[in-house]
Amino acid sequence: MATNHQETTRILRRLLSSGMTVRAERLLGRMRPADRGPVLSALTPPEIRTVVDLLFEGHRAASTLIELPPELLPQVFDALGDERLAQIISRLELDDMVEFVEWLDPERRDPIVSLLPEGAREELRKAELYPPDSAGRVMTTRFVALDKNMTAEEAIERIRATGADDDEAILYLYVIDDKSRLLGVVPLRRLVAASPERRCAEMMVTEPVSVPATADQEEVAQLVGRYNLLAIPVVDDEQRILGVITVDDVIEVINEEATEDMYLMAGLSDEDRVFSPAHHAIRKRLPWMLINLGATFLAAWVVGLFERTLEQIVALAFFMPVVAGMGGNGGIQSLTVITRAIALGELEFSSALRAITKEVSVAVVIGLVTGAISGVLAYLWQGSPYLGAVLFVTMMATMAVAGVLGAAVPLTLKALGQDPAVGSGVFVTTLTDIFGFAAFLGLGTMMLDRLT
Amino acid sequence: MATNHQETTRILRRLLSSGMTVRAERLLGRMRPADRGPVLSALTPPEIRTVVDLLFEGHRAASTLIELPPELLPQVFDALGDERLAQIISRLELDDMVEFVEWLDPERRDPIVSLLPEGAREELRKAELYPPDSAGRVMTTRFVALDKNMTAEEAIERIRATGADDDEAILYLYVIDDKSRLLGVVPLRRLVAASPERRCAEMMVTEPVSVPATADQEEVAQLVGRYNLLAIPVVDDEQRILGVITVDDVIEVINEEATEDMYLMAGLSDEDRVFSPAHHAIRKRLPWMLINLGATFLAAWVVGLFERTLEQIVALAFFMPVVAGMGGNGGIQSLTVITRAIALGELEFSSALRAITKEVSVAVVIGLVTGAISGVLAYLWQGSPYLGAVLFVTMMATMAVAGVLGAAVPLTLKALGQDPAVGSGVFVTTLTDIFGFAAFLGLGTMMLDRLT
Repeated sequence: MATNHQETTRILRRLLSSGMTVRAERLLGRMRPADRGPVLSALTPPEIRTVVDLLFEGHRAASTLIELPPELLPQVFDALGDERLAQIISRLELDDMVEFVEWLDPERRDPIVSLLPEGAREELRKAELYPPDSAGRVMTTRFVALDKNMTAEEAIERIRATGADDDEAILYLYVIDDKSRLLGVVPLRRLVAASPERRCAEMMVTEPVSVPATADQEEVAQLVGRYNLLAIPVVDDEQRILGVITVDDVIEVINEEATEDMYLMAGLSDEDRVFSPAHHAIRKRLPWMLINLGATFLAAWVVGLFERTLEQIVALAFFMPVVAGMGGNGGIQSLTVITRAIALGELEFSSALRAITKEVSVAVVIGLVTGAISGVLAYLWQGSPYLGAVLFVTMMATMAVAGVLGAAVPLTLKALGQDPAVGSGVFVTTLTDIFGFAAFLGLGTMMLDRLT
Repeated sequence: MATNHQETTRILRRLLSSGMTVRAERLLGRMRPADRGPVLSALTPPEIRTVVDLLFEGHRAASTLIELPPELLPQVFDALGDERLAQIISRLELDDMVEFVEWLDPERRDPIVSLLPEGAREELRKAELYPPDSAGRVMTTRFVALDKNMTAEEAIERIRATGADDDEAILYLYVIDDKSRLLGVVPLRRLVAASPERRCAEMMVTEPVSVPATADQEEVAQLVGRYNLLAIPVVDDEQRILGVITVDDVIEVINEEATEDMYLMAGLSDEDRVFSPAHHAIRKRLPWMLINLGATFLAAWVVGLFERTLEQIVALAFFMPVVAGMGGNGGIQSLTVITRAIALGELEFSSALRAITKEVSVAVVIGLVTGAISGVLAYLWQGSPYLGAVLFVTMMATMAVAGVLGAAVPLTLKALGQDPAVGSGVFVTTLTDIFGFAAFLGLGTMMLDRLT
């Protein structure tokens, strides 16, 4: 079903280089907007400029650019002049407008925004009053509001009059009172099936699920998912409807948030995607890797404290990878379970203690089993039952600590108002490693007489 | 907006224990189906039975249970008898029916299925012919098909006649020819805005995006996301429409697949959720932890090969956490970027080499910088420039290997038809560790004269 993007890019390139712009335009016109994105992003800057000009004339530039993965936007923006960009941005819906302006080179922002029509500038200013990643920034302000006394027939007339036959925001009609306060929602399908003289107030779903404009987009996505909505109204403190967030934007949010969680755990930045330029990826990853380097040197220093012990029983060094590898993996497991539960809205603070207790009990049992096996293997390999015992006790304790940290770190970050995933992978594995090494070599030191 | 589930559970419990079933029923009736799920899952088995009976009488049991997180289903199923369960299952739509039967205790499956009405049994048998997690298993068979000569007015009449005013599957109407082959799609909003005598063939979107019934659900989710669809038709080899997958199911699939990827990387099983019973989690995690244990012992064995070297320069052991920690983290970064790009459909095999090359170049540069810093720190700490040089070379090489593995392991798994994330975290970190230790201690052995 999906278009072969590589093949299309090749054909388009040939048409452009031989000046066959009419055929190029026709080829682009036949494609779905979402298929033009990947093709566009594979072109050189001058090619991008030509293609965007062609699309712009056919009123297709805006609808194409909103389909691009956002991290490719800077590359396309760089190829376009300020005026062309302002023209395109002014044709976007508010939510896309906000996103585009966010991705503009900071230096070009003000000049381009000043080229927008007054109305768009005003809307943009208002949207930017909401916090980043909040409902107010993701919503569209295009929706159809109905009076509660309107009949089904009148409502349908109203929809026809707006000419919004391709507008996703009209899957629900919003019934409001004379102060714009949201009273209820009429699903379009119910309106269609209703007899013409039925009144909106009779058809509407009352107490509709809504979100405040300041709500985090992740919370919006959870509500839409939980209640199987196609769109969710955004309201102010007085329950007046401000805008609507549609399910296609919610899908983007869900994908973004999942990427963010996986990325943050690994110390990656959002903008570091598979085909981001290498120098960009290096700049983004280096700070976290330097933090990680500091953490590993801390672990090295802890090991260094036990130089005397290691000199006498060098075999202890063999088992350091076992302690670190098992503890780290156990910690990441708990971390993943808890982070994911927070992201999906399955875990609230009230049940945090229950979650931590569970993770720790799981970790202790796994520590018991794997610790016992390790102890026996160490005994068989090195011939010292005491070494086996030290490894067994260390592994059990380290796994328990890993369970506590894996569960408590994301919950603590969340309680501090941070993203629960931010750098948690590094925290958990490093702290686990340090504890594990200290316990193992510390016990080894205490048992030095038996071990030598 | 969301209900306070703990508070509601407490009230419901009190009503049940004092036999006030009418009030309990009223309380349940006022709740949204999605809010009944969390409440239900917090009850004891006898309470669950009573509540399901109450809901069943109000025709609300099926709509409530489909809102439960699937991993909680077994717990609820255990509390119900075969007949009650069969009654509930027979009221579900096909996709939910398939899911419920999959979650049944294997021993109860056949008895319960045999209690279903013949029609449902037949549909179930057909759906189970499709591979697990395929479009054919996720689709609903309820949709409205129209003849291409039908007018807008007739189409609306048709929708009214089906009485499907709350059915999400009618956001699009499907235009078919006399052999049931899909010709086009009419969005409901377009139908509403159209003049009554307009024909379906004139209104429909031609060449609609569709998926074969055997397509993987992840691919379905990518298409729905890319083309901003509200539903996608499922077709057979002859383009005949078999069913429809709606966007609410797609959101579930996206969440499931994101969970799966994060879980698989950490060696976790899908069913191991935050409030799964501890013994369940232990049983699921232990096998992977044992594999991980084997891997760490392999690393230990490699370190053991260098016993003589370590005996002479015990300081080498101090830097093992640095080599392993940095290599592991670098590998996980590349792994995360590549796995996520595969999941979002941003990476195809044709560009695999480009992706690997980029990851390796990023890794080499980061290895150069962090290796240089580590080398200097090691020199300052231990006073040996040779030790610094050994660490520098090791880190650069290890980071490069980590980049290669992080990028290549998920792509290889995908090429082998496996999930690209399965156990990849363990593979990558273990292989990186082993390489890093071997390189570091190997180089140390070669430089032994200079180091002592």
